[in-house]
Amino acid sequence: MKPFAAPVEDILFTLNHVVGTADLPDWDAEFASEIAGHFASFAEGEIAPLDEPGDLEGCTLTDGRVAMPAGFKDLYNSYAGQGWPGLTIPEDFGGQGMGAMMLAITSEIFSGANHSMQMVTGLVPGAARTLTRFGTADQQARYLPSLASGETLATMCLTEPGAGSDLSRVRCRATADGDGWQITGEKIFISGGDQDMSDKVLHLVLARTSDNGIKGLSLFLCPCTRADGSRNAVTVTRIEEKMGLHASPTCQLAFDGAEAELIGAEGQGLMAMFTMMNHARSDVALQGVAHAARAHDVAASYAAERQQGRGADGQPVTLDGHADVRRMLDEIDAGALGARAIAHLAFVTMEKGDNPDLVEFLTPLAKVSGTEAGIRGAELGVQVLGGYGYLREYRLEQTYRDARITAIYEGANGIHERMLATRLLGTPPAEAFAAFMAAEGKEAEAVAAALEGWNLARKQLLDNPDPTAFAHEFYLLTRDTLLTALWSRVLRAASAHSDPQRLTRVATRQLEVIAAMRPARLALLGVAQTSGA
Amino acid sequence: MKPFAAPVEDILFTLNHVVGTADLPDWDAEFASEIAGHFASFAEGEIAPLDEPGDLEGCTLTDGRVAMPAGFKDLYNSYAGQGWPGLTIPEDFGGQGMGAMMLAITSEIFSGANHSMQMVTGLVPGAARTLTRFGTADQQARYLPSLASGETLATMCLTEPGAGSDLSRVRCRATADGDGWQITGEKIFISGGDQDMSDKVLHLVLARTSDNGIKGLSLFLCPCTRADGSRNAVTVTRIEEKMGLHASPTCQLAFDGAEAELIGAEGQGLMAMFTMMNHARSDVALQGVAHAARAHDVAASYAAERQQGRGADGQPVTLDGHADVRRMLDEIDAGALGARAIAHLAFVTMEKGDNPDLVEFLTPLAKVSGTEAGIRGAELGVQVLGGYGYLREYRLEQTYRDARITAIYEGANGIHERMLATRLLGTPPAEAFAAFMAAEGKEAEAVAAALEGWNLARKQLLDNPDPTAFAHEFYLLTRDTLLTALWSRVLRAASAHSDPQRLTRVATRQLEVIAAMRPARLALLGVAQTSGA
Repeated sequence: MKPFAAPVEDILFTLNHVVGTADLPDWDAEFASEIAGHFASFAEGEIAPLDEPGDLEGCTLTDGRVAMPAGFKDLYNSYAGQGWPGLTIPEDFGGQGMGAMMLAITSEIFSGANHSMQMVTGLVPGAARTLTRFGTADQQARYLPSLASGETLATMCLTEPGAGSDLSRVRCRATADGDGWQITGEKIFISGGDQDMSDKVLHLVLARTSDNGIKGLSLFLCPCTRADGSRNAVTVTRIEEKMGLHASPTCQLAFDGAEAELIGAEGQGLMAMFTMMNHARSDVALQGVAHAARAHDVAASYAAERQQGRGADGQPVTLDGHADVRRMLDEIDAGALGARAIAHLAFVTMEKGDNPDLVEFLTPLAKVSGTEAGIRGAELGVQVLGGYGYLREYRLEQTYRDARITAIYEGANGIHERMLATRLLGTPPAEAFAAFMAAEGKEAEAVAAALEGWNLARKQLLDNPDPTAFAHEFYLLTRDTLLTALWSRVLRAASAHSDPQRLTRVATRQLEVIAAMRPARLALLGVAQTSGA
Repeated sequence: MKPFAAPVEDILFTLNHVVGTADLPDWDAEFASEIAGHFASFAEGEIAPLDEPGDLEGCTLTDGRVAMPAGFKDLYNSYAGQGWPGLTIPEDFGGQGMGAMMLAITSEIFSGANHSMQMVTGLVPGAARTLTRFGTADQQARYLPSLASGETLATMCLTEPGAGSDLSRVRCRATADGDGWQITGEKIFISGGDQDMSDKVLHLVLARTSDNGIKGLSLFLCPCTRADGSRNAVTVTRIEEKMGLHASPTCQLAFDGAEAELIGAEGQGLMAMFTMMNHARSDVALQGVAHAARAHDVAASYAAERQQGRGADGQPVTLDGHADVRRMLDEIDAGALGARAIAHLAFVTMEKGDNPDLVEFLTPLAKVSGTEAGIRGAELGVQVLGGYGYLREYRLEQTYRDARITAIYEGANGIHERMLATRLLGTPPAEAFAAFMAAEGKEAEAVAAALEGWNLARKQLLDNPDPTAFAHEFYLLTRDTLLTALWSRVLRAASAHSDPQRLTRVATRQLEVIAAMRPARLALLGVAQTSGA
């Protein structure tokens, strides 16, 4: 099987030449390349080799404590020792104070090497950001250094039985108790709810402080250990048996009067939690991208070596000499490249900080398109390998299983699509998107045509009292509209990549497919066709 | 989790009211319904309950012999005791002499209940058909009764390392040895290459009798036991670790001078093997349909019970009250219904026997569309269940893993698509398809429009020196063209079903989507659009 190779050049190309990271005041392309190289070496040499054994061994729950697969604790020590947990935590608190773009680089590489391990460690930056934004100076001082050093890992405790996508149903209750609070209730699907890699775990828990629907929800910090050193009343009651991500313990947690402290204002829990969730969502987009890139790497290597059948000239050819295999490889590649560009655009817009509306519109697009690229890429990658793709030995079957969750967690894709077609549609975020596209339209004619169609569809949905039935189609049209701009950028920048031919071929084909599909998508959205659309 | 329920009414509806099974001279709808009912009870009560434990336990190889998971042997005894192995074997040889349509009913139900078990037992009808067609009277007398009684199970030994889709590379060699033959070589990916359910195994082996490419291949019968009762020189050297189908042992077999007898003429092995392969392919189409139907059943039941969010009126609703979930459920349903109609049409045309050209064209369409429906159905089913879909407990994750293989084995889907766009395109099979569609076009206007587009695309590809790059798009257009006819038939026949509203809704939507997509597909096939297409 093909060892993991981090797609460093593709990542840096998108950042530097497609999404305008260079406009960031403190962006240093050379430094970014260095960090990417360091992390890639670490991921290839140490993180990826534990991906398969972790999948086979899985996690175990004994006496209420979770054990990670063999080797994970040492790997984590090495990861923490190199300072990676603190990458984006402010220097004042022992971190390295780097921007989120660095995280976009390392997160994707990490997920491609070992999605499970990335899951368990990946909530730290979001927790740190939530603390930086909503925590008191005292809370920051007590928790940030420990997160930066790797002593503490974080969890995000939202979901409950009966309250998945619908957080108004949260029943976990927090009651004031002198200076502090006590949390009682049950949470499910908590990634890394416990593990034996870090000394401490900090749970960020959404709990009810009043019965006032989602306005009765507050966010709490609930450490696994009390100030006096005793175990807090948080117990892992089971870990789930899942299709994949076996090395990421998905825990059911029982809070039984667990000591906790409020973070942010009472009743503002959802808003505070969104900071963490938005981070997690962008991260999930990159997990999908990582799986697509990995699937492409494995399938392309295999297809370049494996002889099969004969070409049009009657001579034996390798698999990738067959047009249909080429089509599948390019489709996986396009999924990774396109979705990465969307995710990076969301990240860089977030970092610039001057267009939060656009960020709000791009986040669901990035989440859905990234995760779809991963799932579809794994599916096609397995297909390229044929019977071998179905075997454990060739490792793509794990990619297929691991990638599948991404469309489900951090808001099922259907929820994000629905948001685009309803809540966001008539608001500043949609306007921000239209404005962004209009500016792009000046650079590329295809973009102007795409935007014209999108505007018609948007109008159609705004006039519809219940547009939710069109949410999926509208997502597809919106994604394709944005991708028209991004593929056009890729075409213009292709020469900055060491393989411009590949980028040009993929981008050209994608623009062709998107243009051909547009009338169909518009028709299904009920838009009467005009010559321009 | 939802126990398995055989989709008996949908199966019988398609047979009786969509694909014209009633035109078969010996078709007895009432009897078919009775058989379906019997097998459904058996599948629901005995076969399905072993699906999950079989997946968890898997098969083991000890001292060259394969052990099936606990309970499989007893289940097989029960299956054989009820006479199911002999369903389509002639009565003269101890079978029940029923037509292939009965097999279409039981195969699909079997696969939905327990795909692995169906795999291991499912090659018997194809082997029997091969014997009936190519075997001598003596061979038939020696093997058919044993297949009918269940004493013997059959395997199909084609694939070798380096010879997957490309059988000209087969190296397994047969040498004449007095009256008989000896086979030496290695075969891989042999389903049920050994098991401990039946007393005997009959291997149908493709082996080389001369170096003349595919014309040097002959087909052999190679029993696991010699006439004197000793073990033949066929050894299982390993069983594969796979993503799914854990209760179906995928074996690597070493033939070391194994005694065998020729079946059919020397050098005609591929032709004889095609009888078995064509049967297996139609079977695989129904495996895909079965997975889609099962995914729909599980997801629809779940979505009807689980409360989530609020409807447009602000009241709490069940999941299936959300338009997006409804869309996913209907898409799974449409996949199952549409692909089943294609597969049944192929079966019934085969049974009628008067249009082998049409059968040749329909078989790849059935294989690809059935397997795609299963994979996509499982994917969407998992999505409807959200986090629970990713858990073992809810069983859809097994469907997702098991269904995945169907697009790979019995000819990877890409090979079938390529065949449609190349070898079959200018030949009587494509003409037979055009003639079939033209007759349909007289019944429904939409069909005439679809056929017009298809003819343009066909002409375009015939003029193209290498149409393989268009194979996937051409498959999609061809499938949609055929489905335009079949959904039109469903619409006309909907009142014969107990839920005509469901069929009408799904068929109407599918016709809408297909019509909207046609211009896009034609554009991607390089067909200049006319108003009619």
